[in-house]
Amino acid sequence: VSFEPRPPDSRSAAIALDAADPLAFARERFDLPPGLIYLDGNSLGAKTSSVSLDDAVNRQWGRDLITSWNANAWWTLPRRIGDRIGALVGAASGQVMCGDSTTVQLFQALTAAARLRPERRVLITDGANFPTDQYVADSVGRLLGLDVQRTSPIDPLPEDVGVVAFSTVDYRTGERWNDEAITDAAHEAGAVIVWDVSHAVGALPVELDRIGADLAVGCSYKYLNGGPGAPAWIYVAARHQPWVDLPLTGWHGHVDPFGLTSTYTPAAGIERARIGTPPVLSMLALEGALEIWRDVSLADVRAKSLALTDLAIARADAAGLETVTPRGHDRRGSQVALRLSRAYEVCQALIRRGIIGDFRAPDLLRLGFAPLYLRHTDVWDAMDELVHLVETESLAAAPRPEGVVT
Amino acid sequence: VSFEPRPPDSRSAAIALDAADPLAFARERFDLPPGLIYLDGNSLGAKTSSVSLDDAVNRQWGRDLITSWNANAWWTLPRRIGDRIGALVGAASGQVMCGDSTTVQLFQALTAAARLRPERRVLITDGANFPTDQYVADSVGRLLGLDVQRTSPIDPLPEDVGVVAFSTVDYRTGERWNDEAITDAAHEAGAVIVWDVSHAVGALPVELDRIGADLAVGCSYKYLNGGPGAPAWIYVAARHQPWVDLPLTGWHGHVDPFGLTSTYTPAAGIERARIGTPPVLSMLALEGALEIWRDVSLADVRAKSLALTDLAIARADAAGLETVTPRGHDRRGSQVALRLSRAYEVCQALIRRGIIGDFRAPDLLRLGFAPLYLRHTDVWDAMDELVHLVETESLAAAPRPEGVVT
Repeated sequence: VSFEPRPPDSRSAAIALDAADPLAFARERFDLPPGLIYLDGNSLGAKTSSVSLDDAVNRQWGRDLITSWNANAWWTLPRRIGDRIGALVGAASGQVMCGDSTTVQLFQALTAAARLRPERRVLITDGANFPTDQYVADSVGRLLGLDVQRTSPIDPLPEDVGVVAFSTVDYRTGERWNDEAITDAAHEAGAVIVWDVSHAVGALPVELDRIGADLAVGCSYKYLNGGPGAPAWIYVAARHQPWVDLPLTGWHGHVDPFGLTSTYTPAAGIERARIGTPPVLSMLALEGALEIWRDVSLADVRAKSLALTDLAIARADAAGLETVTPRGHDRRGSQVALRLSRAYEVCQALIRRGIIGDFRAPDLLRLGFAPLYLRHTDVWDAMDELVHLVETESLAAAPRPEGVVT
Repeated sequence: VSFEPRPPDSRSAAIALDAADPLAFARERFDLPPGLIYLDGNSLGAKTSSVSLDDAVNRQWGRDLITSWNANAWWTLPRRIGDRIGALVGAASGQVMCGDSTTVQLFQALTAAARLRPERRVLITDGANFPTDQYVADSVGRLLGLDVQRTSPIDPLPEDVGVVAFSTVDYRTGERWNDEAITDAAHEAGAVIVWDVSHAVGALPVELDRIGADLAVGCSYKYLNGGPGAPAWIYVAARHQPWVDLPLTGWHGHVDPFGLTSTYTPAAGIERARIGTPPVLSMLALEGALEIWRDVSLADVRAKSLALTDLAIARADAAGLETVTPRGHDRRGSQVALRLSRAYEVCQALIRRGIIGDFRAPDLLRLGFAPLYLRHTDVWDAMDELVHLVETESLAAAPRPEGVVT
């Protein structure tokens, strides 16, 4: 029986929890704007003080120029970062490669997964999956002549399924799926599974090796705080690496990249998941951001994430607001989605009061809880404002801006 | 008849040319290490003093966080940079989109090109093309069931050709192809053409609209000086945009990205060439680097490029060295390749003397001439050292390092 403490029922109780927080030191390493309560770390993580690009721009690029590929180890950056991210998703060394966008890595992973099951014709994605995950599934399905079907991760799998592609945590509702049981079911059906852990990595323990995942992808600008558009990554289980057949055949993934030969022979191991020249400056920012994980336990992160989301849900319950996110700890990621009749206007009003969450059409206010830098008192104060707004304000209809990015 | 001045025949003549150089002001805007002669700007361009990421990292990301997508116009960055690059390759506004690596953009462009000619079965690439160009041609050919054939850009085109994919300038020899005549020949054969202008953009005038190119891609870390791994770009001629069918279907390219729908409907115009969340920090470095083009004429750049390469070739001739690069101005990019029996050792010895070129297996010393920051005296002095080395030194065999990146 796990002990689940009740959420604080007063601001002073929240203060006490912050005082006892084993992750309090982590917040000190972030450059957070004073007074801001940032509940959008599930979209763009905050900046740690360990990130600076001065050296990268001025010394590495400006002074050392082309020699930096060796002298400043740019060449090994994608693999080096890959291993550090691997440690956060339960992947032994040599199975994660960093680079490119999540879209590109999804395309790589889904194509490669289908090629591992050439005799199968069905590719399954979640009909509630993040749009890009669905779009790329359709694109890969079209290129390879597959039947792309949309289900929920808990639905039974159809005949002839070759690839199952789900996200660990639902980007809207914050629901966390049982990745182990779903992986087992995919394998029992004879399929390979591709996990998108974008909304989980850095917020909760992920154990790709232990659950037997085949491939996985993730982003690094959410709970990994890698910076805007930080490079994504791909996981290829060691057992598949000798055969995995990736469609984006850039020269960095060649067995002999400097041989500059006319035909592509993939490198051994995870090196074949390199594509073209990586965005070195963005990658060095990510490498700086990952420094914080040297001292942080994912068990502490998960415990605090659950405490923070418990508190938000308890306050929403007390105010009669509808919570969409599951209540069971094993079914929850690190965000809370509330269904509000005027979710967009509430979100905008909160932003004007220095509390940043985000809106997901048509009616969800999505609050992300980054355990490394969010305090119990932040959650308490944000929910105070939210409840006050919903209960007392007549909210003006607000025009919607062009870009708010997941 | 064009007037082609003879190269300077003394160091003092080179000094006089530098004093009269209309691009002399441009060099002052680069942060070049003192004493270094950098002949590798065709691989990684030097840094301009207009590039700093302090504001991007500390204010835009650190302080403004997610609101920067609107508040600091991150959302429009790929298109904004695309238009600025478009102006350098003869593309009217709204035809170039910045993002991802050259490998990824080649994959997009070749797949889309083949889909514009669904009834044709042959894809042509240059057997001397940069390896990634050939590898991606093979990968796309395999996905779409095409017959990928390797020719030279001046060879006749075969029956049933649907896509022709060449580079404007040969990455090894520096040979420049007649892009207008080759485009015409492709169109006469009923094919669409995809130009890779990575080794031309920023070094010589490219006129994609005027020659009638269909699609094009390029990188931005060579003569555009965008920084290590700076994002690449894609050109889609306006006439193809209503139909062009790109395989990397990220949500940023959706007609209604914030509608977050389950199926992909591409945006109108060049916006459909967006993919996923772009590497904002690398992109802001590139945007800073492009500032210099506000004051620079590509005609001046081309004239100086020819003068610098003429000088290098004349010095090589005088020393009896073999130049692989064509002598005709219309057939030359902005680099000179010399065939040397110990090219690798010569390259390493030059680097030890503060002169950076690069080596291309098996026997080429490749010297790049970036007209914005290279002087006639730099070329004079570099050729002095090179000739001296070849004539007098017994070069020790040097171990080859892992990574020197094109």
